[in-house]
Amino acid sequence: MSQEQGLTPRAQDFSAWYNEAVMRAELADYSPVRGCMVIRPNGYAIWELMQSALDGMFKDTGHRNAYFPLLIPQSFLAKEAEHVEGFAPEVAVVTRAGGKELDEPLVIRPTSETIIYSSFAKWIQSYRDLPMLLNQWCNIVRWELRTRLFLRTTEFLWQEGHTAHADEADAERETRKMLGVYRRFAEEWMAMPVLTGVKTDTEKFAGALRTYAVEALMQDNKSIQAGTSHHLGQNFSRAFGVQYQTAAGGLEYVWNTSWGVSTRLIGGVVMTHGDDVGIVCPPKLAPTQVVVVPIYRSDEERAAVGEVTDNAVRTLKSAGVRVELDAREGMKPGAKYYEWEGRGVPLRLEVGPKDVAKGQVFAARRTGGKAPIALDGLAAGVVRALEEIQSGLYRAALERREANSRRNVSKDDLIAMMEGPGGFAYGGFCGALACEEAIKEATKATIRVLPDEEFRSPSPPARCVWCGSPSVTEAVWAKAY
Amino acid sequence: MSQEQGLTPRAQDFSAWYNEAVMRAELADYSPVRGCMVIRPNGYAIWELMQSALDGMFKDTGHRNAYFPLLIPQSFLAKEAEHVEGFAPEVAVVTRAGGKELDEPLVIRPTSETIIYSSFAKWIQSYRDLPMLLNQWCNIVRWELRTRLFLRTTEFLWQEGHTAHADEADAERETRKMLGVYRRFAEEWMAMPVLTGVKTDTEKFAGALRTYAVEALMQDNKSIQAGTSHHLGQNFSRAFGVQYQTAAGGLEYVWNTSWGVSTRLIGGVVMTHGDDVGIVCPPKLAPTQVVVVPIYRSDEERAAVGEVTDNAVRTLKSAGVRVELDAREGMKPGAKYYEWEGRGVPLRLEVGPKDVAKGQVFAARRTGGKAPIALDGLAAGVVRALEEIQSGLYRAALERREANSRRNVSKDDLIAMMEGPGGFAYGGFCGALACEEAIKEATKATIRVLPDEEFRSPSPPARCVWCGSPSVTEAVWAKAY
Repeated sequence: MSQEQGLTPRAQDFSAWYNEAVMRAELADYSPVRGCMVIRPNGYAIWELMQSALDGMFKDTGHRNAYFPLLIPQSFLAKEAEHVEGFAPEVAVVTRAGGKELDEPLVIRPTSETIIYSSFAKWIQSYRDLPMLLNQWCNIVRWELRTRLFLRTTEFLWQEGHTAHADEADAERETRKMLGVYRRFAEEWMAMPVLTGVKTDTEKFAGALRTYAVEALMQDNKSIQAGTSHHLGQNFSRAFGVQYQTAAGGLEYVWNTSWGVSTRLIGGVVMTHGDDVGIVCPPKLAPTQVVVVPIYRSDEERAAVGEVTDNAVRTLKSAGVRVELDAREGMKPGAKYYEWEGRGVPLRLEVGPKDVAKGQVFAARRTGGKAPIALDGLAAGVVRALEEIQSGLYRAALERREANSRRNVSKDDLIAMMEGPGGFAYGGFCGALACEEAIKEATKATIRVLPDEEFRSPSPPARCVWCGSPSVTEAVWAKAY
Repeated sequence: MSQEQGLTPRAQDFSAWYNEAVMRAELADYSPVRGCMVIRPNGYAIWELMQSALDGMFKDTGHRNAYFPLLIPQSFLAKEAEHVEGFAPEVAVVTRAGGKELDEPLVIRPTSETIIYSSFAKWIQSYRDLPMLLNQWCNIVRWELRTRLFLRTTEFLWQEGHTAHADEADAERETRKMLGVYRRFAEEWMAMPVLTGVKTDTEKFAGALRTYAVEALMQDNKSIQAGTSHHLGQNFSRAFGVQYQTAAGGLEYVWNTSWGVSTRLIGGVVMTHGDDVGIVCPPKLAPTQVVVVPIYRSDEERAAVGEVTDNAVRTLKSAGVRVELDAREGMKPGAKYYEWEGRGVPLRLEVGPKDVAKGQVFAARRTGGKAPIALDGLAAGVVRALEEIQSGLYRAALERREANSRRNVSKDDLIAMMEGPGGFAYGGFCGALACEEAIKEATKATIRVLPDEEFRSPSPPARCVWCGSPSVTEAVWAKAY
């Protein structure tokens, strides 16, 4: 891909643009293994920043990390009926190891409820052991038919929280709390607005009582499920015998929750903020927040400019800014700009002889706009610019989502939206599986969530968008990744 | 395991002691999957501290993290002849996925040279792309017959560095540099002295030109290979076609290195520092460095003591100390001491009414010794105590190793040592495979390293310890994990 070529414009082919943007930023690459990707250093560095922020939030809410086996006896999956039905078709199975056929095949974890709750059964004896609040960072394998870099890959990285509680109310509080953590992370770190709400039974996790999700609208007006939080009820504790003695001396099954987000979030960042030049990293998740590019035509100029850029880098580093100096020789500034823009670096500082004379640097924002920042007060100016870029990205994404959301849609509206521009369609739902399936069949749209109160329409829809019978809830439809 | 029972003394059965110490500290647990363990929160927290320290060292030396697929086409392993011979017998093989038999079976990575260098072949074009310095944190599966918690498990967590260089000298520098990083980590963080040196061909990595290792002597006088750094030469670049254009316009194969340490290191910490009460965490790797235990008999005393312990915890936290307050009710101080000792917490601060009156806390070191620390200057006193514990652990381990090392051993010495107490036996080696094998057969000891210069004996041994022919190098024998 050369500078002259450019990316396929989003408006022309969003899917082609996405792949090209990911490749140009060197976030990931295809691998020789079907459906598996390589996460390159530029992409992995974003994941490390995501992990660090999320891990801090999990620990602040009392969770501890642990690690459970990759391989799960096939019989474990089968212990929870819905769970095995949901996951058995997409597991990878180890049948041979150490040169021998295995007596019982092992599946590579498609999720870890079964192996984790079998340990919980050993560790939990009494109400004093509750709540048990664990999290695991690991890899997952699900044999997907159609894969996309980050969005759907056979192997992906994620975290899965697993907790056990004494009663339903405490498990429900936990499920909602972690949904809130995901919402906060999406909004504050990814600059990605989300809807929160509960899934219908069709879309819930295999084995859960209820699944909550955060959903975000991408630039092609398709929705991405960015994180899920499941109230598992006593389904797994009954399957694995996770019981505890109550304070009163009785014996009860625990209530479980599980919740996860994955490297898919990186795809969400790309599709929320990217433009026709490439990806745009929100400053809080940008491995390089600022790149400094010296501009000079003579050795003399180079020396003068170099002194300023060296100082600027030092100053910004000590202010905690993730900054890089691009002092590569034999490469024109324009070519450097192009490269760093493609990598989504939020702020570029250009320093030429005129800037040196004026005691300033020239700051170009990846999101548009150029302005000088005085060297005196550089760190404060850069930090302010980064904060403005971060909040500007969120605001723009929120405006875009709202501009592409329609309230109280009719059947015809829904059909027209999904045949046309897409977006979030809010409407009444009678609760019947038949309507849900008919809508999916006719429009390819699914119910993303039954939205939480703050996202519901001011006047709740009275009738089901499809069959016209009385609505039991409001629902948000969209096509989804 | 109750307080009354205690652990099996090390002198009686080191292996039983080890398992019990790991279980009592709740570092790990057995899993329902053969040879796989669960790393519990107390153990995983040590791993997180190890990762954080090592990751910083890797980044300081110019490496970036990336992530490559878990699953490797079986044919990839076979591309490097020694490599497949070494690893094929111990791989786990996925033959079925998504409900179908796979056309080509996939192995779960036993190490990632093949899959990583196949990507290097795409990314490396010119000398400008070199050196390429990557690292990966991931899980590994090797089908081991006899497993031990942390020391040898079917699945384990590790990091594997993978680099490509323009020439042999640069690859050799890298191999040695990373060996140096491992040595520094072992000494400064784990308080574990190590020997460094090169492996004989018998013990080198399958596919390497040369393997360097850090080896440490455990309390049962067996050696643990704590980390390895491999100069891979051009073996893999030739197998995977990783070529680059030189500045002069020629085409050359790159030179690779790979290096790794794993969760096995946690076992090394346990076996280096543990005592008959349980594990002892070096302060720099202790998830909890200090536990504060209030002592009181009345509500009045509790209030007075509580104020001091709350302040102490706040003070220590702001000084960056990892501190926990154990204010559990209905549990005697002695029972708390026993629990925290078993977890290896290096420093315990006891605070009773008399201490409050004297304006002090009573500090009990996990390594022995009790002394008051004045509340005025508490943070400085605690930090100093932790530093002393850290350096004391290293010193004690070094003294123990030296006391159990013998220089210039004869054949009879070597046999007597390995039949008796074990330890590091330094002696001359003729370089012949026959001698190496005969010694292993007769004594179960292997050459751990041909030691680096600073570890060699002042007067080099003249004769092979076994056959008496002229020695070509000094070697260090020991039984090993």
